[in-house]
Formats: sequence, structure tokens, C-alpha cells
Amino acid sequence: MLSLVDLRTRIAAGHLDPAGAIRLAEAAIAAHDPGIGAIVSRNPTPKVSEAGPLAGIAVGIKDIIDTADLPTQMGSPIYAGWQPKADAAIVARLRALGAVPLVKTTTSPFASHDPTATVNPRDRGHTPGGSSAGSAAAVAAGMVPLALGTQTGGSVIRPAAFCGVAAIKPSFRLLPTVGVKTFSWALDTLGLFGAGIADIAQALSLIADRPALDLGDDAPAPRIGLCLQGFAAAPDAAALAALDRAARAAEAAGARVADLTLPAPLPEAWARHPVIQDYEARQALAWEYAHHRAHLSPELGEQLDAAQTLVAAQYDEARRSAHRARRVLKDLFGEIDVILTLSAPGRAPAGLGTTGDARFNRLWTLMGVPCVTVPVPGDGLPLGVQIVARFGDDGRALAVARMIERALAA
Amino acid sequence: MLSLVDLRTRIAAGHLDPAGAIRLAEAAIAAHDPGIGAIVSRNPTPKVSEAGPLAGIAVGIKDIIDTADLPTQMGSPIYAGWQPKADAAIVARLRALGAVPLVKTTTSPFASHDPTATVNPRDRGHTPGGSSAGSAAAVAAGMVPLALGTQTGGSVIRPAAFCGVAAIKPSFRLLPTVGVKTFSWALDTLGLFGAGIADIAQALSLIADRPALDLGDDAPAPRIGLCLQGFAAAPDAAALAALDRAARAAEAAGARVADLTLPAPLPEAWARHPVIQDYEARQALAWEYAHHRAHLSPELGEQLDAAQTLVAAQYDEARRSAHRARRVLKDLFGEIDVILTLSAPGRAPAGLGTTGDARFNRLWTLMGVPCVTVPVPGDGLPLGVQIVARFGDDGRALAVARMIERALAA
Repeated sequence: MLSLVDLRTRIAAGHLDPAGAIRLAEAAIAAHDPGIGAIVSRNPTPKVSEAGPLAGIAVGIKDIIDTADLPTQMGSPIYAGWQPKADAAIVARLRALGAVPLVKTTTSPFASHDPTATVNPRDRGHTPGGSSAGSAAAVAAGMVPLALGTQTGGSVIRPAAFCGVAAIKPSFRLLPTVGVKTFSWALDTLGLFGAGIADIAQALSLIADRPALDLGDDAPAPRIGLCLQGFAAAPDAAALAALDRAARAAEAAGARVADLTLPAPLPEAWARHPVIQDYEARQALAWEYAHHRAHLSPELGEQLDAAQTLVAAQYDEARRSAHRARRVLKDLFGEIDVILTLSAPGRAPAGLGTTGDARFNRLWTLMGVPCVTVPVPGDGLPLGVQIVARFGDDGRALAVARMIERALAA
Repeated sequence: MLSLVDLRTRIAAGHLDPAGAIRLAEAAIAAHDPGIGAIVSRNPTPKVSEAGPLAGIAVGIKDIIDTADLPTQMGSPIYAGWQPKADAAIVARLRALGAVPLVKTTTSPFASHDPTATVNPRDRGHTPGGSSAGSAAAVAAGMVPLALGTQTGGSVIRPAAFCGVAAIKPSFRLLPTVGVKTFSWALDTLGLFGAGIADIAQALSLIADRPALDLGDDAPAPRIGLCLQGFAAAPDAAALAALDRAARAAEAAGARVADLTLPAPLPEAWARHPVIQDYEARQALAWEYAHHRAHLSPELGEQLDAAQTLVAAQYDEARRSAHRARRVLKDLFGEIDVILTLSAPGRAPAGLGTTGDARFNRLWTLMGVPCVTVPVPGDGLPLGVQIVARFGDDGRALAVARMIERALAA
């Protein structure tokens, strides 16, 4: 994989220039994408900045995020060839830092559940997950050192785990969603994919202009709550084993690990996530539904059909439930620093019929708290574990993820 | 003015058909807009629905709100002729109810402070206020029975007061902002303008699909906190007299009115509103600033220049302040039902050099609570008073506003 930290180090040392770093990405895309299908479109003549902390960093942009120089097609024939006027706020920020938004990456239609044609670079007979399929696959295949995704249920953490890359879904609205196609405004969250935790920590601290988010290796030994999210049903044995390995590695590195069962308001809120998501999606995609129902992908079409029957009272009750759960979770984080849990129920499913299940991700998206997935080394398709911290404590989630990443490698 | 309730009543009684109601609006626009300049563009061949509760209701859409059949030009040369792909969620909702989004209305550039060329229909030598200038003026001039605006500081309540119309800025995100150009995602709120309180109450309850928001005349006599917002400096004598008249009218109608001084966290949050607004605007308008600085309007350009120096710590502190204030305000609403305060510091300023001052509106936008402005009858340019209720209690704000409207007319 292309490491953002490594590229920046080589550029800073004069061993590589930004244009050369972009050419590395272009060559990797030319070599690998034909068999993977992660890329929707590419800027053939990118303007490469010599200045800025992200100079030389090629970025993959999920194709629901507006770009002024490339179409934004939402993974849907309804938006075929659609060229937005302006860059999304996050894309403008990347350019201001010197990065090159080089490619648009595949997405499930409107970031829904329906699969893309992208395959998993670790085993092409498997899904890379979704909805941020192309961003996870492009980083995993070494095409770009950084990619943007979005998560409404589990669309960042899950594909990252399936593809064996690091990713963060930061605290709600730490990254601006202006210019990102809305599915659910209370849930949609931008996230970052990178080769390792240090890469996404550097990227996030620069993009969010918060140096304190990148704690490096200096964080104190954490108190970790080990959480199976039993309300979401059991994971595969392999995922459980990976979680156990991560917990033992963390303990060996000095962390205190204790089992954690989430109080009732949290599973209650988890169960209501789909109500909030679908009631908002019905409004966010009202134009597409009214005028292009026949061109919506099958699962999304059915999801929006069903959403037409939801009423405001159900939505309000779901929002109150989420509010109660956020207060309980805040108190929980008085006793522990982070939660260690599953990134997905297991390895990437075979075939391209499904993008996998977001059931271990939904609660944390609804809570708006930062989530980081760490690849767990092993045989076969990748597995990941998920670190969750309190709202605004993205730096801690990254620091603990880094500690576990190192402990697993040791 | 065209009253939504009156038009619906006449249509229901068979005295008018939806196409006839739309023709009334078209004729009024042709007659009045040439001297007022509230309209940016008009659908020359609107599809008039015969069905739906808002059939026959022509709506003015502020020109930062996306429409699939009319350009959306943001009040800025940067977006001259720009045609979005899809309707904003609120526009799709209006169409689903049978309404006709007939015209786009003038807006300050990107809903900022810089004035438009629109004049106040009550006295053409005065501003109609801003940034939702065209929507307020179009309703006041009797061109349309309903118009959409947005408020980030005071851009709905202030122009409504200046133009002598009713308006509501509902609870934050009661109306979806998907497809509305963002200035500040924590503040931007869609609002409705109409001839009277009953009109906007009917419109809001239908659009939000919450019948309970339209309480009619059945609300019990309220406990009213009379609040001068002294931290925002003194209003004009005329505005103060109008507030006093409204308070006495409410008392005469059975309300209990007591003076209210807001606890310190509220004025503290008020003072930080611009930090949140400008830190987010810098991100939301990053593409426009990076590529079209020379074509930004003067005040907005300077505002964004200054915003470049803000740092994340200031923004975070401002958000914490707002969070504290929301909790204090919630407790306050245990003792009173609504707050009665000023809609603006006085009447519409002379000339078109300024859209007026949002200092009596900012706090409530930041708190996310529903605000309704009621015209106070009198000589000269209009004055309004503002009713504020707790988050989610939009129905109560409207019911008390209606009670005061009737008491003032008696």
C-alpha cells in the first residue's frame, strides 16, 4: 500500500517530489484498477501543488462527494455525467493543503446497500464491502495513499475491515459534509481510509486543522471496555478470535481491559437507527424517488418504498431514544477511555451479492462518536477491530488504535 | 396579501380552482414585481396539480434553494445561470403536496449581509431586510401566499417584520435543508413567510406532516416571559412601544406576562454566534473563496477574509457555550411557555445600503428554537414582535402568535 506518512517523509527528505508521488499513484491505478474496478473517473491532467503539507498526496474521492473538475455520479444512472458546480468543502480543504483529488471512487447508489461491481483487492471473489467500496479498495490495492468515504450505517468501517486497511469515522461533523450527497443528515459522516493508523491520524489532524488529534505514541495506557454488542447478534468465530487477539495484545502493551455490557438505552437506540435513517432518506432523496423511481437500485427502491409509511412520531421517538443513549454513553466514558469492539460480523462475504452487514457499526454512527478500525494480521481475508471513543476524543481513538496496531505486529 | 388559508377555503368550496389560484399569483407578480424586484426567475408554464392539500398554492423559493426546473443563482454572479440537477428536499415536498414552486426570489449573495436590489413593498425607499429579501417582499406585495426563506442569523424573522408579514423559523431541522446552499450547517434553518399566522401554521403542519403543529385557537392561556435581550443593546423607541402593545394585548387576552432576564450563559452564547457562523462559512464557501474571491460581494468577501484567522479552539469553545445555553434555556421553559421579544431593533432602515441588524435574532437561531414574528398594526413602516418557544414546541409558538395577532387586531 502507499503510506501517506512514508510519502510525506520521502518528499520532506528530498527523495521524492510531489509530482513523482502523484505519478506513483497514477502508475498503480493503471496497473491495478483494471482488475478491481475501484475508480469511476480520473483527472488526466491533475494540477500538482509543490506546497502544502499534503503536496504529493493523491486522494480518492467517493463519488457522492462533489468535485468541480470531475463528474459526481452518485453510483446511479440518474446522475450519469452530472458535473457539479463547486468542490465539496472537504475537497476544497484537501486542495488547500496541497493534496490532489485524483480519482472518484465507486459507491453504492447514493451510498445505499446495493453492491457495486468493485472487487476486493485481497481476494477478487469477494466484496470489498460498501457503500464506500472504491475508496477502501483503492487504498488496499495501493492505488492512493488516502481516500474519502462516508458512513451512515457502517459504510467506512466495514469496507476498511474487509479490505485490510485503516479507517476513521470521526466525530459527527468534525469534517464538513457540505457538497456531499445526503442520505440521512443526522447520520452521514465523512471518513478517511489509509494504509495504517499513523497515516489516517496525520491526514485527519491536517484536514481538520487540529494538531492535537495526532497524539503519536505518547498516549498513556488506556482503560478499554471490551464490548461484544450482543444485541446485534453473534459475530463469526473468526471475528471473535480477532477481537480476542486485539484485546490480549492491548493488555500485553499495558492497557487495562474489562468486559463491557452496554446499558439498555444503547441497544434501544441501535434498534431505532433505521427509523432515523429511512425517515430522513425519504426526504433527502424525494426528488429521485418522485421522478426516477424506476432507475433506483433494487434495495434502495424497496427501502424508500417502505420508508413512505413512516410517520413523524416514530422519527421523534427514535431521536429521543438516541438522545438518551448519548447521555448514557457519555457517562460510560467517565469510567473507560475507549471501547474495543467488532468492525464487522466477519470477513468479506463471497461474491458481489451483498456488501455485508453494518450491525456492529450502526450504534456508533448514531451516537456520533469517533470509530477507528485496525486491521488484525492473519491468514486469509482481512479482519478488523473497532476502537470507539467519546464524542470529540478522536485523538484518543487513534492513539489506542495505533497502540493495538503495534502490539499486534509485535 | 394572498392568504393561503383563504385560497384553500375558496378552492375547497369550489369557488376557485387550483389553476385559477396560480393565475392570481401570476397576475399579481406581473402587476407588482416590476417596481419591487422580488423575483429572480419564474416558471412560465407551471404544472398545476389538481390534487393535494396545497393544490393552487404558488410558492416563492429563495434562490439559494435548489429547483430542478429553474436556475439557482445564489444571488451571486458566480452562479449565474446555474441549473441544479434535483429539487431540494423541501421543494420536492411542496410539489408532493400539490403546491407550485412558481418563482425564485431574491437573496443576498449566499444569504449573507450584502443587500439586494429588492425594495420594501410597504415603502419603496426602504430595504425589505435580508437575506430572504425577495420572499418577504413577494408575500408582502401579495404576489404569492407562501414563500421559503432561510435564517442563519436573522434572515427570516427580520425581513418579515420589516415587510409586515408573518413568518416562522421552525425548530432546527424540522424542515430539511438538503439541497439548500450551506452558509453554516449548525445554524442554517428553513423558514416560511405568509400573510398571517394561520397561513404559516397550516403550511408548516402540512409540509412537516405534523397536524399537531396547527393548534388553531384551542391553546390554553400561556405564561409569557417578556424579554428585552438587553445584552443586544437597546431597540428603537418604536420597536419597544410595539413590544409593549403586544404584551398588553396578550395580557388582555388572558396571558400571564412577566419580565424575563436571560441567565448569563445565554448572552454568552449570543456573543459567540458569529464564531460558529464564520468558522463554518469559511468551510462551506471554501471553493467560492479559493476560485472566485473577486466576485464575492464586498461584505461577504471581508467576512470570509476575517474568518480565515479563526482557529478550531475558538469554534469548539463557542459550541460548548451554545450547548450550556441550550440546557439553561430548556430549564427556563419549565417556568414559562414562550418568550415574547423584539423581531428587529426597529423599522426597516431607509435606503438599500443595509438589510438591517440581526442582533435580536441570533441567539434563537443558535439555540435552534422555534421563532414566529407577528406584525403589529400601526402607522408607517411595519413592526413585528417575536414569539420564541422551546425546541420542538413550534405549535405553541404559533398558537401564542395567533393569540397576539388576534388580540392586536381587536
